[in-house]
Amino acid sequence: MQISPLLENLIESLRALPGVGPKSAQRMAYHLLQRNRNGGLHLSKALHEAMTHIGHCRSCRTFTEEDECNICQNYRRQMSGQLCVVEMPSDIPAIEQTGQFSGRYFVLMGRLSPLDGIGPREIGLDLLQQRLENESFHEVIVATNPTIEGEATANYIAEICAMYNVKVTRIAHGIPIGSDLEMVDGTTLSHSFSGRREIKL
Amino acid sequence: MQISPLLENLIESLRALPGVGPKSAQRMAYHLLQRNRNGGLHLSKALHEAMTHIGHCRSCRTFTEEDECNICQNYRRQMSGQLCVVEMPSDIPAIEQTGQFSGRYFVLMGRLSPLDGIGPREIGLDLLQQRLENESFHEVIVATNPTIEGEATANYIAEICAMYNVKVTRIAHGIPIGSDLEMVDGTTLSHSFSGRREIKL
Ligand SMILES: [Zn+2]
Ligand SMILES: [Zn+2]
Repeated sequence: MQISPLLENLIESLRALPGVGPKSAQRMAYHLLQRNRNGGLHLSKALHEAMTHIGHCRSCRTFTEEDECNICQNYRRQMSGQLCVVEMPSDIPAIEQTGQFSGRYFVLMGRLSPLDGIGPREIGLDLLQQRLENESFHEVIVATNPTIEGEATANYIAEICAMYNVKVTRIAHGIPIGSDLEMVDGTTLSHSFSGRREIKL
Repeated sequence: MQISPLLENLIESLRALPGVGPKSAQRMAYHLLQRNRNGGLHLSKALHEAMTHIGHCRSCRTFTEEDECNICQNYRRQMSGQLCVVEMPSDIPAIEQTGQFSGRYFVLMGRLSPLDGIGPREIGLDLLQQRLENESFHEVIVATNPTIEGEATANYIAEICAMYNVKVTRIAHGIPIGSDLEMVDGTTLSHSFSGRREIKL
């Protein structure tokens, strides 16, 4: 059967969401039409605004619709002298929830992966270097994921920090290997922060 | 921490989708921003079009952006002389998938619920009566959900059909009591169609 083309299109488009298969997409579409058209309209507007207006912070590269994000603009964040390097913007809320860190962030938007053509410049390490030069950090905490590429990226960052005489630490491996940082529970992530160790070259 | 207001708003708005809690809403928002902005924009447009342009078929009351839906417009569907009455538009794709029914539908958009002020007119029974008068059906299959209200609605429809001398059947109870028609697997639903029985007043 061919149901309404607009409805078919909505069901198809909902599959852009992670973890949404054909069955749940259908359920979502009917639910909105039957019970929550206002919610559907709000979502439509929120999506459009987010997709078109959210760019990257000029200091830390995380998502923001401003020139500089809220965290970078926060003066108290600067006082700690700590910089936490993560792979993706979605890692930041996970770390914030542990309450263990009150410094600034730097978001790589990926990790080193030479085979995919992702080198130091692609993950913004030139900008990171600039920040090490211009701001006064006493510690860089590398919180890349515990994968082979994440480790290689951590080592590369440690080498850069050595050039600027800044102490580098790596969050402890309490995190199950192969899983994503943002999916880890708060306690594990909290432990991995307190158990961080210096990267020795 | 206050992340970007547009991002917060997107996460909040995603919770309009059924089964989406704060954690998955966050995951969805970051996923779209990080990996699929085009998908997010398509979804925004599809939502807006569906929420604003999809109305109800003038014959069967299901969702359509046309005056009359595809099924009602299909001449062959008329030939079967069967009319299947369901509670919600989302019940139609579930029934279509069984391949057991090739007649027309009538969608109540609810069920009788006097305590909530939902009487015969609110579920379109005046329009159903009109159709029984003007079209030639030899069987009305009542496929309301096997709940107390669904059964009461079925009996009410049976009384109307009796007035027009049209045979009424009820789909068999193979469906687990208390669950929703649209969530039932195809085999069970298929059995409930073939095992339907006449409603005796
Ligand atoms: Zn920033
Ligand atoms: Zn119709």
